[in-house]
Amino acid sequence: MADSRFFSRKGPFSVAQIAELTGADVVNAPDRDRVFDDVSPLQNADSTILSFFDNRKYIDAFINSKAGACFVRPEFADRAPKDMVLFTTNDPYRAYAKAATAFYPFETGNGSISEFAVVDPSAKLGKGVQVDAGAVIGANCEIGDGTIIEANAVIGKGVVIGAGCRIGANASISHSLIGNLCLIYPGARIGQDGFGFAMGPQGHVKVPQLGRVVIGNDVEVGSNSTIDRGAGPDTVIGNGCRIDNLVQIGHNVEMGMGCVIVSQVGISGSTKLGNFVVLAGQAGITGHLEIGDGAKVAAQSGVMKNIGPGETVGGSPAVPVMEYHKQTVALSRLIRKKK
Amino acid sequence: MADSRFFSRKGPFSVAQIAELTGADVVNAPDRDRVFDDVSPLQNADSTILSFFDNRKYIDAFINSKAGACFVRPEFADRAPKDMVLFTTNDPYRAYAKAATAFYPFETGNGSISEFAVVDPSAKLGKGVQVDAGAVIGANCEIGDGTIIEANAVIGKGVVIGAGCRIGANASISHSLIGNLCLIYPGARIGQDGFGFAMGPQGHVKVPQLGRVVIGNDVEVGSNSTIDRGAGPDTVIGNGCRIDNLVQIGHNVEMGMGCVIVSQVGISGSTKLGNFVVLAGQAGITGHLEIGDGAKVAAQSGVMKNIGPGETVGGSPAVPVMEYHKQTVALSRLIRKKK
Amino acid sequence: MADSRFFSRKGPFSVAQIAELTGADVVNAPDRDRVFDDVSPLQNADSTILSFFDNRKYIDAFINSKAGACFVRPEFADRAPKDMVLFTTNDPYRAYAKAATAFYPFETGNGSISEFAVVDPSAKLGKGVQVDAGAVIGANCEIGDGTIIEANAVIGKGVVIGAGCRIGANASISHSLIGNLCLIYPGARIGQDGFGFAMGPQGHVKVPQLGRVVIGNDVEVGSNSTIDRGAGPDTVIGNGCRIDNLVQIGHNVEMGMGCVIVSQVGISGSTKLGNFVVLAGQAGITGHLEIGDGAKVAAQSGVMKNIGPGETVGGSPAVPVMEYHKQTVALSRLIRKKK
Repeated sequence: MADSRFFSRKGPFSVAQIAELTGADVVNAPDRDRVFDDVSPLQNADSTILSFFDNRKYIDAFINSKAGACFVRPEFADRAPKDMVLFTTNDPYRAYAKAATAFYPFETGNGSISEFAVVDPSAKLGKGVQVDAGAVIGANCEIGDGTIIEANAVIGKGVVIGAGCRIGANASISHSLIGNLCLIYPGARIGQDGFGFAMGPQGHVKVPQLGRVVIGNDVEVGSNSTIDRGAGPDTVIGNGCRIDNLVQIGHNVEMGMGCVIVSQVGISGSTKLGNFVVLAGQAGITGHLEIGDGAKVAAQSGVMKNIGPGETVGGSPAVPVMEYHKQTVALSRLIRKKK
Repeated sequence: MADSRFFSRKGPFSVAQIAELTGADVVNAPDRDRVFDDVSPLQNADSTILSFFDNRKYIDAFINSKAGACFVRPEFADRAPKDMVLFTTNDPYRAYAKAATAFYPFETGNGSISEFAVVDPSAKLGKGVQVDAGAVIGANCEIGDGTIIEANAVIGKGVVIGAGCRIGANASISHSLIGNLCLIYPGARIGQDGFGFAMGPQGHVKVPQLGRVVIGNDVEVGSNSTIDRGAGPDTVIGNGCRIDNLVQIGHNVEMGMGCVIVSQVGISGSTKLGNFVVLAGQAGITGHLEIGDGAKVAAQSGVMKNIGPGETVGGSPAVPVMEYHKQTVALSRLIRKKK
Repeated sequence: MADSRFFSRKGPFSVAQIAELTGADVVNAPDRDRVFDDVSPLQNADSTILSFFDNRKYIDAFINSKAGACFVRPEFADRAPKDMVLFTTNDPYRAYAKAATAFYPFETGNGSISEFAVVDPSAKLGKGVQVDAGAVIGANCEIGDGTIIEANAVIGKGVVIGAGCRIGANASISHSLIGNLCLIYPGARIGQDGFGFAMGPQGHVKVPQLGRVVIGNDVEVGSNSTIDRGAGPDTVIGNGCRIDNLVQIGHNVEMGMGCVIVSQVGISGSTKLGNFVVLAGQAGITGHLEIGDGAKVAAQSGVMKNIGPGETVGGSPAVPVMEYHKQTVALSRLIRKKK
């Protein structure tokens, strides 16, 4: 059960309600009005709990679970404990996400502006906007309905933030236009000028960075990640992108829809990603590249060439992933011979 | 000598006091009441100074040092300058740490709550708690005796922090229980929700993250490091762990006692580390792994499989360290042949 | 054209003024009094715009540009569109940097101290120093003329910052001496104590870190980068260095003049860099090394040995770059044989 110091729960929800919320099929539920009080992982669940089984690695936990109900793929339904109510679906984790959000809805702004916040009189705040203590909002900012600006966040002059967003504690945003329903985590840095200068032995001369950061709707930017504004063009993050913690995104980078950028990835300036690109943890992408739709980059890879749509690469320098695996095998054979 | 703008010194301490503080044996000290005024590295030391010699690389500095006294391993005692007082011990650096801490004790809270801090009336602050300007402490927080909350730090509602801790400037903590004597460095992010969502071409659906971060006693979390809270279970950091700067720790990670996590390491979700595990800089660990007690991972390694207790691995993908060294050698031979 | 919500423009500037500002030669300009209104990349430029052509990759954009004027190398002058005014120079990007800075000058402090800032009465602020809301400046700090301290930044006691600097939002600085004309980006952490402790199975004992961070003139430290103070000696950053985002610099590191440290690089304790060293993205450098003047380290390299002046290395572990390329080729040949 989630710690009530930190979480407040809605519900309970009935079998029928859960089915409707998630679109899952109900199996083994004699009573459609039976309610569940909470969600939790399989291991800790009891008969009042709704859980999910998605990663086969945890099949034993599923078989032995005391959970009252579970989201599960249809093909595993016959492995379930006898009395478990089953919600079958091809994407149990997605169904669980929706149900869990019903029990623990995301907060939206409560309309309070802390007396310890500093909001420029020219800023336009929508309905329900919440500004916590120590937050600073600059001249001519526009903040959409229901957005929360957490404590000690700093929003620079002219920044536009859509509705239903949450800007985390101690984050700072400047020179940016941000869509609706975005989550900017604590300590994220968005819109500062990029690493642009003319190098030379007589000193490096800074180049004014005259673009912005433009972020779509439903985007997450993780804790302490950094997104530099464009040098002339904008830095662009498409709708639905998920950016994890400690990620670096250079100036002029463009990212399509639904990209997933895992922790500690670095994307150098002017590189363009298509839609639904996945970059695994600690990967690095050189500047001025094009990464096609649906491309995948393995963890710690170093990408130095364009990647076509749908391709998967690995290694540093990165090569097609099958080649990368063969290299790994060849290398391990090589030393076996030398023994 | 440490810059008095930043540091204030105690002492002097006598030979006898230093021996008692550190447990070292005294050699070559005709006068046990002789005092030393300060600590410093060998190079800059004069006869009033206590120093240490630990890394053989610096033996010349030891032989030529003007330091009045020095912690040293017994086997190097006969290389010391003629008049140097020696404190012999098998761990000179540890002895030095204790002595240096006597000269420069760690600060604890002075009991002042800045009039520019924002402390929720329901928060419970222990004796001597110090809250600096701009810090924000949420509802129902509990802060133990002598803890310092530095300027512009943000402590979310319900967070529990033990005694004798220091929470650095601009750090933010939510959904967390933290033990005694912990140092959380500036800009660290602890307790935000992890990178949890159900991926899909129709959009990524966020999964509520219902766990906490639970940190033991005597833990350090470096500057701008990020520790996400658990998804259902907690993220757990054991007693005595040392986490360097810019480290990422994913949701549900569990870490035993005394682990050392060097800068820019990333640990993916649900991975479990035993006790006294060492991860060197920029290493990355995939999710859902088990890393045994005392395991060591070389810098920049990419760990994709479980590691047994006491094993040392290197490379990306990581292999046993001897194998990794052989691979490196084999690769360099390979190109010599091709010339 | 730069978004006027975020940028304010000076000018226009005439052909003659631009030539004088930048030292470029004027070609194809019948009217030296003709003025240009703004700067922009080649693609978006019209006849009122000054642009630049530097990267051959974009030659088509140059040939087809509608820009009124352009900085260009002399050897490309004859590829220019017929009516384009040309400013020829061997370093078009540097000339553009200077011209763009005339149109968009860097801000300096406006002399306002926000009523919501907290400045210790003992701090000495120069002329024109600007302190934004929520910034906290400790006892005995000295801040030079025209420096800007952005919102919610924290400057610890005794810190000295030169003239014409900008300290970004939510940055924190302690135990440091910083020169003139430095840009410290949002969220940077400078001067906290380094990762220094005596390890041992009975627990890790913290070692007091008694040095400082000493930063020269004209230095940039990127967003969320971390620079730990020295353990006894200082951590030193030379004049003109450029440090990108999310970089880690360990205690006692020394860096000469004009070094360029790209995003997510980590430099371990006590390593010394000469002048004009370049470390590309995500490279890692072990502690206690010497990296010679002008050395270059490829992205993601892992440097474990000293590097001589002018050398270029790559790979992990890093080897001379030609060797690294041969290794990459050899590895790809190896798997071709195995097919």
